[in-house]
Amino acid sequence: MAQTLPVSPLALPLPPLGVVRGVRLGAVAAGIRYKGRTDLVLAEFAPGTTLAGVFTRTKCPGAPVDWCRAILPGGQARALVVNAGNANVFTGRAGRETCRLTAEAAAQLAGCTPEQVCLASTGVIGEVLPAERITTALPALHDALSDTGWEAAARGIMTTDTFPKAAVRKARIGGVEVVIQGIAKGSGMIAPDMATMLSFIATDAALPAPVLQALLSAGVRTTFNCITVDSDTSTSDMVLLFGTGAAANPPVAETVDALSAPELADFRTALNAVLHDLALMVIRDGEGATKMMSITVTGAVSDESAWRVGMAIGNSPLVKTAIAGEDANWGRIVMAVGKCGEPADRDTLSVSIGGVCIASDGTVREGYDETPVVAHMKGQDIDIAVDLGLGQGSARTWSCDLTHGYIDINGSYRS
Amino acid sequence: MAQTLPVSPLALPLPPLGVVRGVRLGAVAAGIRYKGRTDLVLAEFAPGTTLAGVFTRTKCPGAPVDWCRAILPGGQARALVVNAGNANVFTGRAGRETCRLTAEAAAQLAGCTPEQVCLASTGVIGEVLPAERITTALPALHDALSDTGWEAAARGIMTTDTFPKAAVRKARIGGVEVVIQGIAKGSGMIAPDMATMLSFIATDAALPAPVLQALLSAGVRTTFNCITVDSDTSTSDMVLLFGTGAAANPPVAETVDALSAPELADFRTALNAVLHDLALMVIRDGEGATKMMSITVTGAVSDESAWRVGMAIGNSPLVKTAIAGEDANWGRIVMAVGKCGEPADRDTLSVSIGGVCIASDGTVREGYDETPVVAHMKGQDIDIAVDLGLGQGSARTWSCDLTHGYIDINGSYRS
Repeated sequence: MAQTLPVSPLALPLPPLGVVRGVRLGAVAAGIRYKGRTDLVLAEFAPGTTLAGVFTRTKCPGAPVDWCRAILPGGQARALVVNAGNANVFTGRAGRETCRLTAEAAAQLAGCTPEQVCLASTGVIGEVLPAERITTALPALHDALSDTGWEAAARGIMTTDTFPKAAVRKARIGGVEVVIQGIAKGSGMIAPDMATMLSFIATDAALPAPVLQALLSAGVRTTFNCITVDSDTSTSDMVLLFGTGAAANPPVAETVDALSAPELADFRTALNAVLHDLALMVIRDGEGATKMMSITVTGAVSDESAWRVGMAIGNSPLVKTAIAGEDANWGRIVMAVGKCGEPADRDTLSVSIGGVCIASDGTVREGYDETPVVAHMKGQDIDIAVDLGLGQGSARTWSCDLTHGYIDINGSYRS
Repeated sequence: MAQTLPVSPLALPLPPLGVVRGVRLGAVAAGIRYKGRTDLVLAEFAPGTTLAGVFTRTKCPGAPVDWCRAILPGGQARALVVNAGNANVFTGRAGRETCRLTAEAAAQLAGCTPEQVCLASTGVIGEVLPAERITTALPALHDALSDTGWEAAARGIMTTDTFPKAAVRKARIGGVEVVIQGIAKGSGMIAPDMATMLSFIATDAALPAPVLQALLSAGVRTTFNCITVDSDTSTSDMVLLFGTGAAANPPVAETVDALSAPELADFRTALNAVLHDLALMVIRDGEGATKMMSITVTGAVSDESAWRVGMAIGNSPLVKTAIAGEDANWGRIVMAVGKCGEPADRDTLSVSIGGVCIASDGTVREGYDETPVVAHMKGQDIDIAVDLGLGQGSARTWSCDLTHGYIDINGSYRS
């Protein structure tokens, strides 16, 4: 189980976390599945907090994903309830009922409507999540909420994660400083499709919900949607972004073009940095991971095509096991490019590892010396670059190696 | 390396192999990569032998795949040369030269043109395959060819395979008995896309090349194209079918509709059985496999859609590790259905394992008793059935579990 896993060798320490005015959080041990650790997180947001969200595109979403998708058009959030250990997925009417009861209980504590309560669950699929475990624990949890509860929250949402994940940045909007701070969980079943594993980000910026949504959707595209641990997309993925408005920055119009407006340039950069940090922490905690792969694909016919090639490399069990074995087996990269169905030409393709161009023009480079590549493979950060030689499309994706640790964790997750 | 791997617990013994009139085979140790085992196979076919072939759709095919694809329109084959240990892939001009020199040497021995010589190689990608190792070994190998050399050939083409693979069937065409006998290799990098790993099948039936081709292409679709070990498609996949004509069955017109002609019904059934047997042996020798998964998908919007769902289940690392851990974790099957992008509806989906319907109508079945399913999971043959409840499309696919053995084999293949 999660508690007994050794910490990932790629783990990063938590950054110094600050306060996001308008947000109070906390975590408690509700005994939903795990013993001797927190597994229920509550966050309360100031009145007027705006909401943006991005969700899994799975055809079998969990009940909390359905719930959040339904309330998202309201654009308002006052509370967030997250549990770990039970995903509340494929639980039918009982799962919907648990959502309703949980939202009602949290709404009563926060003084809002149930439609202003976001819900998220991850863990085992297909087991009924008993609402009373949550609703019984919520009042005491609510009493203990604190604006410094971020680390507790980051720990309380973990499942097979081996370290808590958080990121923070500051930005200016119209001369006023705002903060963006977020947490994430995720380690396996990671191949987000237009969404991610659980991540919750808050800012004290005052931004209309449609602006937040545009910034979040764009930012996720090049961060969470470019990572993969095992090609398996979760039924529970979501990223939520809350804007409390407590920073009282100059108003930003709902109709602004969020992706190009100059007054949001600094905020966009900071938000994307938070998303990038959190996404890469998920890879660094990939189940069983000992090495991280950064894959740069250039020369594709389009960015989309480059992304597909990058994900094919990052998802290939043969590439991932070669990385685990510190084997500069570039032929498997060629294999992954060839199989993925995207336009590619063996004879214009080039492959580099650790900055060394190994193969091009359909064969290995003359005089290729494996020595520096072998040295690079012994490190923790493996850089793979592929140029398809066809066009201007490019993408960057991230993955991790595939080791015995992944088998250990997933051959016995339920038992 | 291949020689030291323990034999798959799912291995099958070789069936009693017969002779295919018009075919003589043999194998020799040419020292291409492996030590102390055969690694070069030669087959010679009687004059007039017709040829059909199906190849990998990778964008980075090996030089032998290019060679065979180029000679296939000739529809004639007199010889086949196969080596194990070096795939001759991504080897540029040197790789093409090795193909030419090998075909010329074999043609001289068989008394034919180089364009009547089929070539195949599997093994490491990106290393030059020295032609002289092959051409030096061919004359003695040719002298020793025998019509009983099938087992030697089945062993000589193995790489990470742990057991040799062969299948045989008899059929009647116009009252005349013909035999269909084939061999295959393959264990990892198995996710054939309109083709397969290496498989060579011969029949003494007299059938025009276009008829053979139509039968082979159709047969591969529901056999080799429905298996996956690790979702990685090889650069070297091919199935070749040779018809020597030695059985002297009544002539079959080149223009016959091979897929419906009544005089070919028995032959079609027998050929498909050979393809089915060989494909499943590849799964039974999946790298590290301890259990075989048979996945039946029904109720899809089309057969193609059902196939994609079945392959998504068979490729999911989380499903495969659950099977390895004997965990009836049906939630991961739901996850795989949900992620694959095909039409599916959580609330019409049902999932069965070992013939027990576990979940339907969006939740677990009332009174579900895991006992018989747990017992089924302890066996070697795991049956998974998914009904999508949407239409009439169906498909059957096969996969194997994902174990420590796979990591062991692929974390150190080259070294």
